[in-house]
Amino acid sequence: MTGAQRVEAALEAAVVRATAGEAPPQLAAALRYAVFPGGARVRPRLCLAVAEACGEDRPGVTDAAAVGIELLHCASLVHDDLPCFDAAATRRGKPSVHAAFSEPLAVLAGDALIIMAFEGLARAAAFTPKRLAPLISLISRGVGMPYGIVAGQAWESEGDINVEAYHRAKTGALFVAATMAGAVSAGADPGPWRELGEKLGAAYQTADDLADALSDEAECGKPTGQDATLHRPNLVAQLGLKGAHLRLQSLVEEAIASIPECDGARSLRDLVQTQAMRLAPKQLARTAA
Amino acid sequence: MTGAQRVEAALEAAVVRATAGEAPPQLAAALRYAVFPGGARVRPRLCLAVAEACGEDRPGVTDAAAVGIELLHCASLVHDDLPCFDAAATRRGKPSVHAAFSEPLAVLAGDALIIMAFEGLARAAAFTPKRLAPLISLISRGVGMPYGIVAGQAWESEGDINVEAYHRAKTGALFVAATMAGAVSAGADPGPWRELGEKLGAAYQTADDLADALSDEAECGKPTGQDATLHRPNLVAQLGLKGAHLRLQSLVEEAIASIPECDGARSLRDLVQTQAMRLAPKQLARTAA
Repeated sequence: MTGAQRVEAALEAAVVRATAGEAPPQLAAALRYAVFPGGARVRPRLCLAVAEACGEDRPGVTDAAAVGIELLHCASLVHDDLPCFDAAATRRGKPSVHAAFSEPLAVLAGDALIIMAFEGLARAAAFTPKRLAPLISLISRGVGMPYGIVAGQAWESEGDINVEAYHRAKTGALFVAATMAGAVSAGADPGPWRELGEKLGAAYQTADDLADALSDEAECGKPTGQDATLHRPNLVAQLGLKGAHLRLQSLVEEAIASIPECDGARSLRDLVQTQAMRLAPKQLARTAA
Repeated sequence: MTGAQRVEAALEAAVVRATAGEAPPQLAAALRYAVFPGGARVRPRLCLAVAEACGEDRPGVTDAAAVGIELLHCASLVHDDLPCFDAAATRRGKPSVHAAFSEPLAVLAGDALIIMAFEGLARAAAFTPKRLAPLISLISRGVGMPYGIVAGQAWESEGDINVEAYHRAKTGALFVAATMAGAVSAGADPGPWRELGEKLGAAYQTADDLADALSDEAECGKPTGQDATLHRPNLVAQLGLKGAHLRLQSLVEEAIASIPECDGARSLRDLVQTQAMRLAPKQLARTAA
């Protein structure tokens, strides 16, 4: 089973559990819709890859960490698409959750996904209790206040925006959680894995800003040009197209260089390199080739 | 320190932690506003009281359980007040969070409160790791899918509503979490404490339905008559005023009778009795006296 298949299977099990029994049918459908089909699943695959590199010994715990991170990411997308935020009618090439179901069900689906993330960790880590507290601490730091995704989204409501804090919180924090939680789920020290998450998060944010500035909606599966429309900070505005592209390249190199020496370091470096190739928007790859 | 004081102090510490450092200022303010001043703090005080009755030995863990339960309750209120749900302009006698801050900040405040609940449990239970997984499982079951608060709120979007599942999920589940988590936080078996939570949850739902039918907004601190306006199931419509009042009384008696024999049983029975006296709306107390 590849990492991608493993992520899908673990997500499927989590959604089945949350929608079992006498669940309210529409929210059950909205949950499934919010999770499948997914995007590139970059964060959970990164989490699995780090765990494997660290000599994974409890696959169920790694799965729960990876699933938790992806569910939290999905929750942030569902809420971010709401009319009061980005008012995005599409996501991953189909109507967004609030467009397909309703605004109340989109709010509730996001809430339910957040809870599912922590519930799944508790279930999986019942027999390795010492890994549970650090996993939850790391992952909640990546999404909560004061430095996680919700903090990042909240910076968009501030007049005087701290751009660095904004990017680090909105994108970087969950990548850091993914690499560090991968290590903890394998019983390893998470400290040496922080930098990989930071660099990849920054690379991903740069790629996202490039995509927003360059791509068309059909390629992206969601509205583009949103940063300019919504007056959000964007690295392309700051550095120019070429500058942002150079930044992306150096961040990927720094990410690869940061991978600690361990048995699985080599295959992890290959994975990061392969994933990074996909990050640059197609137009840029064509024009910059 | 009384139970009520202990709950406020622990909530204060949790809010300080979440709003420390370089937190986005408006979301930080919205979080504090959503938590203080509180309502009766019924659920966290119940959680503390059960832990004390069970011979509490780790006050930090009990505090985290009680705080987590109250933060999740606050999150549900903030999201439930949103324009797409109840569109309530007031709560606890002041403007609701979305009215005072904005809709995006209300969505994010709810999300942040949910995450804070689990983060706080992980922090407090780091040195009693075996209690963490059951605590998170119990508490997430009380708020998530398929049987917790979000499921209860989602039943309001269904045409063919399962009234019993609706009430059990929207109100009962978090009371069950409060009593059972109180026991677990003290290292006790949670099973014998389920019924107390179930009965008190049902009593509280009955009292809430009575208040909605009878009270005025000034007394309640939030809009009343909402169930009729929003065509939501309400026990007063089902049983009549007198029937609903009789149901409330017998539920409180059953709750008290369900308290397992233990060192603290007597003071817990007194607490439930005292709290229950406050449940009946004032008009009813006057007319039914």
